[in-house]
Amino acid sequence: MGKGWEQHPSQSLRAGADWSIADFDPDSTPRFDGSRKDAEKLMARQGEHLSLLQEKLFAHGRTGGKHSVLLVLQGMDTAGKGGIVRHVLGMVDPQGVALRSFGAPTAEEKSHHYLWRIRNALPPAGRIGVFDRSHYEDVLVVRVNGLVAGEPWEERYAEINEFEAEVAAAGTVIVKCALLISPEEQYQRLRERLERPDKHWKFNPSDIDERKHWHAYQEAYEAAIRATSTETAPWHVIPADNKWFARLAVTELLLKALESLELGWPLADFNVDEELARLDELGEGAPPAA
Amino acid sequence: MGKGWEQHPSQSLRAGADWSIADFDPDSTPRFDGSRKDAEKLMARQGEHLSLLQEKLFAHGRTGGKHSVLLVLQGMDTAGKGGIVRHVLGMVDPQGVALRSFGAPTAEEKSHHYLWRIRNALPPAGRIGVFDRSHYEDVLVVRVNGLVAGEPWEERYAEINEFEAEVAAAGTVIVKCALLISPEEQYQRLRERLERPDKHWKFNPSDIDERKHWHAYQEAYEAAIRATSTETAPWHVIPADNKWFARLAVTELLLKALESLELGWPLADFNVDEELARLDELGEGAPPAA
Repeated sequence: MGKGWEQHPSQSLRAGADWSIADFDPDSTPRFDGSRKDAEKLMARQGEHLSLLQEKLFAHGRTGGKHSVLLVLQGMDTAGKGGIVRHVLGMVDPQGVALRSFGAPTAEEKSHHYLWRIRNALPPAGRIGVFDRSHYEDVLVVRVNGLVAGEPWEERYAEINEFEAEVAAAGTVIVKCALLISPEEQYQRLRERLERPDKHWKFNPSDIDERKHWHAYQEAYEAAIRATSTETAPWHVIPADNKWFARLAVTELLLKALESLELGWPLADFNVDEELARLDELGEGAPPAA
Repeated sequence: MGKGWEQHPSQSLRAGADWSIADFDPDSTPRFDGSRKDAEKLMARQGEHLSLLQEKLFAHGRTGGKHSVLLVLQGMDTAGKGGIVRHVLGMVDPQGVALRSFGAPTAEEKSHHYLWRIRNALPPAGRIGVFDRSHYEDVLVVRVNGLVAGEPWEERYAEINEFEAEVAAAGTVIVKCALLISPEEQYQRLRERLERPDKHWKFNPSDIDERKHWHAYQEAYEAAIRATSTETAPWHVIPADNKWFARLAVTELLLKALESLELGWPLADFNVDEELARLDELGEGAPPAA
């Protein structure tokens, strides 16, 4: 744990079955007593640890290991998911990251169970997978907009818990982060996307339609988080009005996930001395033409 | 062009039909008169430009644009392809990068034409695709190891040129970089991988078997580069004994490829004033529950 944290965010931001959105302040910086500058310094330092552990995970995957990490990012428009990818995952080797964004399902995806496209996108061994939106869309946007018949939410929560338990049992450490912002902050961010021509491409008129459902989303988030925050794959709810806080918090959560694997460098599966002898026999210069 | 370059590497490193490996010095730093430190400073500065242009390319792709960039990296074991990905592509948003490594073909891949897996891996619009090895393996490792019957190289060069012309015509700027090192430098790098336990995972006994074919590889590289360095998709041969030089050179080549697209920010495909009015009508606070 770095300087500035009074309690690790894996504890302070963890949401349980009694988590209440009414008690949640998106503008808070729970148990972090430093400034934005402190946070940025700490994040750069933790980024180096993250980068080293990512390389160990990658090495592990290349030598037959089965572990991977899956970062699930949920949040409404403008909550900062893209910024997390850029600034947190941007600190590690791009080779080690398997990123997947989930939008509205395609015709093919719709013809399958909603977890089908999720399973297909699971990170291979050795990678940090990142889901920018995820299977949780199927109990969030789908619920708010009434996109399926009936009220299959309880059934889906159970299905999701079972699915995640299976993924974890196969060797994947799941880190679930909900980035929650205040309506005032979303207003400012949407306004900025409209006022700045270099941000227009990030805006979609549907963002405002979704904003109308603010309350329904709050309810859907609360219900989903309560029902799917398991021991195996707990939710962390990140106050995201302050981008610097959200980015540091996700860095720490990822780092802890990687640390939990306690990976060393893989042992050579060849005889080091023999290979050194073979190399020296060939010599330092260009080997002769055959 | 930054300080330190006497000529842009897109000129000085470009290989034509008369390119000769005998005249090539892997330890040189052509037309760059600065130190390693100058190169690192320049690279950080160019990385910021690269990052901005990558975002424009991504924005372009998200709003219906067709352009992408494809960086093809070829080089023998330890030539530094992975370092390019980490240090050059690591400077831009991971969302904007589509990375693909090509190893020995799988059974499914073998059942298709050798360009099949390449086509499937082309970057979508808006992305910087990176091939860590590529279709050129099919005229390099395949040739050196006699993995196909006959001598189909001339035919394959023509096929590759046609394929790349087609890819370019569809909107992809192709940047081909061959990273070439000296046998002495490869010896040192292989030795390091054998001596350092944190590098063992990068070593494979086959690396030494391949090293035995040094001359055959030199010939195969020369022939392939001469035959496939077209106007549309020229080869750049990067002296790669000095990692700092190779990384800076690839940064400059990528940057130039992105600049050649002359992308501005996409125009809004919605009415900005109307959307601002809709946003303000909803207000800054939480919209009322429906």
